[in-house]
Amino acid sequence: MLKVGILGATGMVGQKFIEMLEGHPWFTIEAVAASERSQGVKYGKLGKWKLSTPIPESVKDLEILPVTPEGIGQIDLVFSALPSEEAGPIEEEFAKKGYMVFSNASAHRMDEDVPVLNAEVNWQHSKIVDEQRKRRGWSGAIVTNPNCTTAVLTLSLKPIKDEFGIKRMIVTTMQAISGAGYPGVASLDITDNVIPFIKDEEEKVVLETQKILGELKKPAEFKISASCNRVNTTDGHIETVSIETEKKTDPQNVAEVMAKFQSEPQRLGLPTAPNPPIVVRYEDDRPQPKLDRMEGNGMAVVVGRIRKDEALEGIKYTVLGHNTMRGAAGCSILNSEYFKAAGYI
Amino acid sequence: MLKVGILGATGMVGQKFIEMLEGHPWFTIEAVAASERSQGVKYGKLGKWKLSTPIPESVKDLEILPVTPEGIGQIDLVFSALPSEEAGPIEEEFAKKGYMVFSNASAHRMDEDVPVLNAEVNWQHSKIVDEQRKRRGWSGAIVTNPNCTTAVLTLSLKPIKDEFGIKRMIVTTMQAISGAGYPGVASLDITDNVIPFIKDEEEKVVLETQKILGELKKPAEFKISASCNRVNTTDGHIETVSIETEKKTDPQNVAEVMAKFQSEPQRLGLPTAPNPPIVVRYEDDRPQPKLDRMEGNGMAVVVGRIRKDEALEGIKYTVLGHNTMRGAAGCSILNSEYFKAAGYI
Amino acid sequence: MLKVGILGATGMVGQKFIEMLEGHPWFTIEAVAASERSQGVKYGKLGKWKLSTPIPESVKDLEILPVTPEGIGQIDLVFSALPSEEAGPIEEEFAKKGYMVFSNASAHRMDEDVPVLNAEVNWQHSKIVDEQRKRRGWSGAIVTNPNCTTAVLTLSLKPIKDEFGIKRMIVTTMQAISGAGYPGVASLDITDNVIPFIKDEEEKVVLETQKILGELKKPAEFKISASCNRVNTTDGHIETVSIETEKKTDPQNVAEVMAKFQSEPQRLGLPTAPNPPIVVRYEDDRPQPKLDRMEGNGMAVVVGRIRKDEALEGIKYTVLGHNTMRGAAGCSILNSEYFKAAGYI
Amino acid sequence: MLKVGILGATGMVGQKFIEMLEGHPWFTIEAVAASERSQGVKYGKLGKWKLSTPIPESVKDLEILPVTPEGIGQIDLVFSALPSEEAGPIEEEFAKKGYMVFSNASAHRMDEDVPVLNAEVNWQHSKIVDEQRKRRGWSGAIVTNPNCTTAVLTLSLKPIKDEFGIKRMIVTTMQAISGAGYPGVASLDITDNVIPFIKDEEEKVVLETQKILGELKKPAEFKISASCNRVNTTDGHIETVSIETEKKTDPQNVAEVMAKFQSEPQRLGLPTAPNPPIVVRYEDDRPQPKLDRMEGNGMAVVVGRIRKDEALEGIKYTVLGHNTMRGAAGCSILNSEYFKAAGYI
Repeated sequence: MLKVGILGATGMVGQKFIEMLEGHPWFTIEAVAASERSQGVKYGKLGKWKLSTPIPESVKDLEILPVTPEGIGQIDLVFSALPSEEAGPIEEEFAKKGYMVFSNASAHRMDEDVPVLNAEVNWQHSKIVDEQRKRRGWSGAIVTNPNCTTAVLTLSLKPIKDEFGIKRMIVTTMQAISGAGYPGVASLDITDNVIPFIKDEEEKVVLETQKILGELKKPAEFKISASCNRVNTTDGHIETVSIETEKKTDPQNVAEVMAKFQSEPQRLGLPTAPNPPIVVRYEDDRPQPKLDRMEGNGMAVVVGRIRKDEALEGIKYTVLGHNTMRGAAGCSILNSEYFKAAGYI
Repeated sequence: MLKVGILGATGMVGQKFIEMLEGHPWFTIEAVAASERSQGVKYGKLGKWKLSTPIPESVKDLEILPVTPEGIGQIDLVFSALPSEEAGPIEEEFAKKGYMVFSNASAHRMDEDVPVLNAEVNWQHSKIVDEQRKRRGWSGAIVTNPNCTTAVLTLSLKPIKDEFGIKRMIVTTMQAISGAGYPGVASLDITDNVIPFIKDEEEKVVLETQKILGELKKPAEFKISASCNRVNTTDGHIETVSIETEKKTDPQNVAEVMAKFQSEPQRLGLPTAPNPPIVVRYEDDRPQPKLDRMEGNGMAVVVGRIRKDEALEGIKYTVLGHNTMRGAAGCSILNSEYFKAAGYI
Repeated sequence: MLKVGILGATGMVGQKFIEMLEGHPWFTIEAVAASERSQGVKYGKLGKWKLSTPIPESVKDLEILPVTPEGIGQIDLVFSALPSEEAGPIEEEFAKKGYMVFSNASAHRMDEDVPVLNAEVNWQHSKIVDEQRKRRGWSGAIVTNPNCTTAVLTLSLKPIKDEFGIKRMIVTTMQAISGAGYPGVASLDITDNVIPFIKDEEEKVVLETQKILGELKKPAEFKISASCNRVNTTDGHIETVSIETEKKTDPQNVAEVMAKFQSEPQRLGLPTAPNPPIVVRYEDDRPQPKLDRMEGNGMAVVVGRIRKDEALEGIKYTVLGHNTMRGAAGCSILNSEYFKAAGYI
Repeated sequence: MLKVGILGATGMVGQKFIEMLEGHPWFTIEAVAASERSQGVKYGKLGKWKLSTPIPESVKDLEILPVTPEGIGQIDLVFSALPSEEAGPIEEEFAKKGYMVFSNASAHRMDEDVPVLNAEVNWQHSKIVDEQRKRRGWSGAIVTNPNCTTAVLTLSLKPIKDEFGIKRMIVTTMQAISGAGYPGVASLDITDNVIPFIKDEEEKVVLETQKILGELKKPAEFKISASCNRVNTTDGHIETVSIETEKKTDPQNVAEVMAKFQSEPQRLGLPTAPNPPIVVRYEDDRPQPKLDRMEGNGMAVVVGRIRKDEALEGIKYTVLGHNTMRGAAGCSILNSEYFKAAGYI
């Protein structure tokens, strides 16, 4: 069993890491670290747990440690659920000291030598880590996962891009409140409401999608337009996607290509890899966040309503994924499993 | 004062007609009609009122009448809030007997000689009524308004089409539960959920938008793609819209053209006409259903987030309108005011 | 393995029976029965599944059968999730033909020779079944469970009544929408709202509580006042309870007595019995439906805020339980396990 | 017209003061004051307005002033919407400098010489202000209103206490999120949830109710038990109330006494006084927050479900009132109207 630590263990994503790592066949949580005001307290005594699953027994008695390599001590890898505005230098410090850092923070995503990894989509990007180490003189490394919206979106785009090519894509998202962390969205703002704006989200969707679906150091060049909205759901981002493909295709074809899609994590049988990674539904009214977000233990994306897009003379569909699982903690865990299987850890 | 009647007066749209006609300067409600099981009861005793405004005193003592010309008796015009599957022959019967019927039902919207009127957008289509009367041998006539989504959408599209032309348009909607009537959407279906499907809605958006923005008997030919979703809001449909225009333009230009838009209802000073009909907001996070749906007494649409659409090399924005006011009862009332001002009544 | 059937298998409670019986160590579902319009269809093809867990594979291929002994065929026991207004004669027919019927319907709850069983509270009432069989000439029998609110309430009252006696009790409930079945509560009625009334619920709470906490054929005589409200939660009924006890006590005492409560299902180690059956929380702000309803796999009740009641000079607390698990399907399953352990099946 | 100022004008209650004072026949807003980080900005430019009614034009151009007598300048009275933890010394400073302060903060409510005024209930308590001025050497004075829950509750209790006497009372509340201010309740905490705890609320309900329904300096002595819950509604607190009366009575009697209740604000015809102050509903399922909170322009309380309480051998009912109108800003405004009518201003 590898010993893992969680940086930013008390926030929503930190809690999700703990929940998803419970019972993991390869990893055992040895260290939880958080900001000063929680340090020294036992995790189970903190009173911030917001998930409906109980705190795992194995974590209850861990004392909350400082977010430094010295504070954490000797372990095999760390997951970072730090706020993006704090994560930058802290993650670098860990990588420098030899830790593999799997980060959900956006701080380093756009660094040229840091992969934004969504394992089924661009597992080959993992090798940029060699350059990262050499260039920065680190024995560890930083591996990021995309923002929640992009994680869900790119997984659905991957087989389409491979099979038909993508010329342009328009996406409108309806995102759950858990995506904003805790306390996050005020209830007075979202009850009986939609908020048609999420700060920096549309920019991230464009840039991260192009990086993930591109080649190493060469982002994909197709044109992307994103409109991101917050809606009153707890978990599960749902997105309408319109695509003009390079090669002409039709909904039936696209459904088949998506339904049969397999990738490296499935071939390697990674513990957190959903199989199939893309679940295609043929009912008129699916996917739905409440009914479908836990598909593949929260790691699959569910696609439905695949049909012609009359305006683009292409195709359109609706895709759903669990934003704090596939879109955050789970994506990071899957990435780390890939790195281990690939011999990096 | 003209005497008006309401067909289907007990449903959600019927109630909205009653609420919006209270205190109207030209119209007074003389007759309320509904299905057999309510007939003979006083409206105020029915116990089906679902609005947070109280039942107007003037309507409380009206006895519910049969939905027939004989049942209603001699009045000046009727508003139809009948279910679309029942409305067809009933509305024809009224028109034949000389009544002007302003209908929210979809039954006759696609009839070539029946206007789908959204007064600011295509008031000139009113004159097709002359042909309708002649062809059908009626002394009355049927005038429909568009479905709620299309009413909101086409009002926002009108100044763009006039000024820049539209080549293609992609719209994703997030629609309120009141759009499905009562009892409509089950709470178990929509709490903590989004339903990515509304029966027949996308087809209506395409066909009605093309009819309204086209010329008489010659629908507009630009390509439309619609994805319609139900979200957990009570009132107010919000839509993300991406457009490729004929003439190149930019967000600033589009904002100006929308903000200064005026049309015939404003020039005529019709009682229910909002002024301005399109309210442009410049904050990042507007429009929002809860905060903006009552703009212009529920009759204006609110547009925000006007920006470049990178995928279409055009523009995109978010538009909001009150679905049971601008999108249903209010639109019908405004249409009837236009017909009166134009001398048809 | 005993073969079980589910009557009314397509409704919300029927679905919950199926979900909770998946993987059961003693029971395997052999028959699913429902009203005529579903008969003959495979369960997995029906399209009515509303739970977020997927339909168990083992049930997908079962054909939906008629709700008659002949239709169901030879099995060991049936669970009834029939609507209360239909359940009466159907359940009698099954009992007459030799089936043990564990019913969630209210039809027979007030029959003197039918137990309303909440296993931890009144397992001894099971023996009235002997009289039921003799008097009615049945080889089978009917065993009911209480309505959801009462199931949760009486489990929390049991140790208090045993230890301190109860003179009077006042309860106000805040009940989840799933308690009304599907389609049940209209979203327009409950969004941003509380409905201070649930038909027949307060009467049931009073009569069923007195029957369950009384002796066989001799209902408890303490006075009960109930106010039942529907609130906008999906699952989990939460109730504030004020009690004047016979013997004086204090919150500390009551907490201890509740926390250490064990009963026959725990002693027998029944598969569905939660242990502990009552979870006592000491934080100010627990129990909460979202966080605590799954305690004990949805079979425990969670009690918190135990404090003095100044008006009754007694004690008060808040109790929560999962209404479709502890309060419906799960209670029936636990009852059937007790009957099996007691040798009736 | 009297010139009024609002302290804490940018928060939720401050906004409600502004909304409710728009068009007031006696008062005109001359000054808005708030904490340092908003000072100097025009109110209309602040971007914090959360109400669905637009910001009144008359307030848009007011510059936000410091919360000091010098900052506010010469005006006739101030309304305080300050946070309770800051309000204490600031309100004293204003009273000392000669201002009448009508405060929604709890800071001074329990001061013996400060009235907690709910005008229909205890208008006579206003005269304690004479003692306050004398004792403290102030030319101004502080007048508080009760917390939102108590304002609604005591208005419903007043006619019962007068007519039948009250021996004990048990109340369970279901309170709206707007009661917690902004940002207040996190959406992750309240979506699909009930929170069975509101800090200090139960203590306030007991003490303020006894003070309001008592005589000057002699709180009422009947026993009160309160359980306060936060539910997922935007506005409107709804409460179930069980009462043992001194004199025996019945639901019919209580309904009549409540329905015909009139008090000093109604007799004086104060502008904000609802008439009737208590609206009695006879349907099974009323009052409901969404449908009834705006009764009497948000200033009436609505009572329904009046029935026997079997446990107390008394009566029980459900009462609803708008928490930020009757329960906060509106109550303060009504109090100030009474003071003006009584010649204090």
